[in-house]
Amino acid sequence: MRLCGYWRSTAAYRVRIALALKGLAFDAVPVHLVRDGGEQHSDSYRALNPLALVPTLVVDGKALTQSLAIVEWLEETHPSPPLLPDDAWARARAREIALLVACDIHPLNNLRVLNHLTGRLGVDEAAKLAWYHHWVETGLRALETLLAQEEHRGPYCVGDTPTLADICLVPQLFNARRFGVDLAAFPTLLAVDAACAGLEAFRRAAPAAQADAE
Amino acid sequence: MRLCGYWRSTAAYRVRIALALKGLAFDAVPVHLVRDGGEQHSDSYRALNPLALVPTLVVDGKALTQSLAIVEWLEETHPSPPLLPDDAWARARAREIALLVACDIHPLNNLRVLNHLTGRLGVDEAAKLAWYHHWVETGLRALETLLAQEEHRGPYCVGDTPTLADICLVPQLFNARRFGVDLAAFPTLLAVDAACAGLEAFRRAAPAAQADAE
Repeated sequence: MRLCGYWRSTAAYRVRIALALKGLAFDAVPVHLVRDGGEQHSDSYRALNPLALVPTLVVDGKALTQSLAIVEWLEETHPSPPLLPDDAWARARAREIALLVACDIHPLNNLRVLNHLTGRLGVDEAAKLAWYHHWVETGLRALETLLAQEEHRGPYCVGDTPTLADICLVPQLFNARRFGVDLAAFPTLLAVDAACAGLEAFRRAAPAAQADAE
Repeated sequence: MRLCGYWRSTAAYRVRIALALKGLAFDAVPVHLVRDGGEQHSDSYRALNPLALVPTLVVDGKALTQSLAIVEWLEETHPSPPLLPDDAWARARAREIALLVACDIHPLNNLRVLNHLTGRLGVDEAAKLAWYHHWVETGLRALETLLAQEEHRGPYCVGDTPTLADICLVPQLFNARRFGVDLAAFPTLLAVDAACAGLEAFRRAAPAAQADAE
C-alpha cells in the first residue's frame, strides 16, 4: 500500500492513525500541497485523485480517495483491532462524531478554501482567520455537547478503545491549535485528545513525526 | 422513527431515499430552515442536534445526526435491500463517491455558509452564486471523472442497484439545478440520475413530494 499524503493535512493524518492502530505497513508518498503551487495539481496526481486533494491510498495499482472511505475499507479488510464498536448504535455514534468533523468542520477550513477566500474573494488575513475560527469553534462546541452527553464515552470518544471518532477528532484539534483556537472551552475533547496522545499509534501518525515534516 | 428534516435540504433528502429504498416507515417532522430565522436554532431542536442542522433521526427517544451515519446505521440494522455492494473495494468506491459529495461539495454550499458569505463577509449575490458554482462544478467534474472510470458502474454509480453513492449524488444534482448549474458537461452523472429517477423510492423522497414543500 502507498499513502499519498502531506504531513500537515488532517485528512491524511486520519488515515495514518488508522494504519498505525491496525499495525499496517505502508509507503508514504509526500505530496507537497504548497510548493510550486501545489504538487496535488500535477497531471500524475490528478490521475489518482481527480479533486486534487490528499490523501489517496493506492492498493495494487488502484486508487482510493476520501479519508473516511479509506478507513472504512481498512476496517473491513483488516478488522483487527476494530476501529468501530460492536454495538450498532455505538457504531453510529462513532460515525456521527467522525462525520461532524469531516463534513461540518474540516471542509470549510482546508487549504483550498482558505486560498479561495484570500484569492478569488479578496478577503484579508484577519477576515480569513475569523472565518476559520467561526466554523471550527461552531463545530467544536457542538462536538463538546455531543461528547459530554455520550453514553458510550470512555477514555476515548466512544468506548474504551480508539475508534473512527478519535481518528477524526485528534487531527482536527491539532489543526485548531495551529490556527490559535483556544481549546479551554472544550474539556471533554481535550480529555479524549490526551488519552489518544498516550498511544504510540497516534504519536507515530502525528504531523511532526512524518518524513516530510518541515 | 422520526426524521427531522426540511423538504429542500439535500442531507435530509439522502436519508429519505435510504428509508424509501428499504421500505421503512417514519414520521416526518418538518424543521423550517428559513422561517422566523430558522427553526433549527430553537432550544428544543438543538437539544437533538447541537449543530442546528438537518437531518436528525430520533429512534426510541435517542437522536442521531449526520446523514451518512444515519444511512450506515439503517444499513446495519435493516440490511435488506443492501445500500452497499458485497465486494469490499466496490463498497469503498460507493463510500468514496458519497463522501466526495458529503465532504467536498455540499458543506461549502449549504444554507449556513451561503448566509455567512452574504451576512458576515458582506459578499453580494453575484459573488455568492460564483462561490456556489465554483465549488459545485469543481466537485462534479471530479465526480464525473471518477464515475466515468468506475469499473463497477452499472445503471447506478456502483453496480446494478442503488447504493449510498446514488443516495448522495441525486440530491446534489437536484441542488445544482436549483442554483442554475449547467449539467451538460456531466453525462455520466446525468445517466445515473435518470436511472434513479425511474425508481419509485427516489421519486417518493424527492423534495417536491414532501408535505412541507412550498
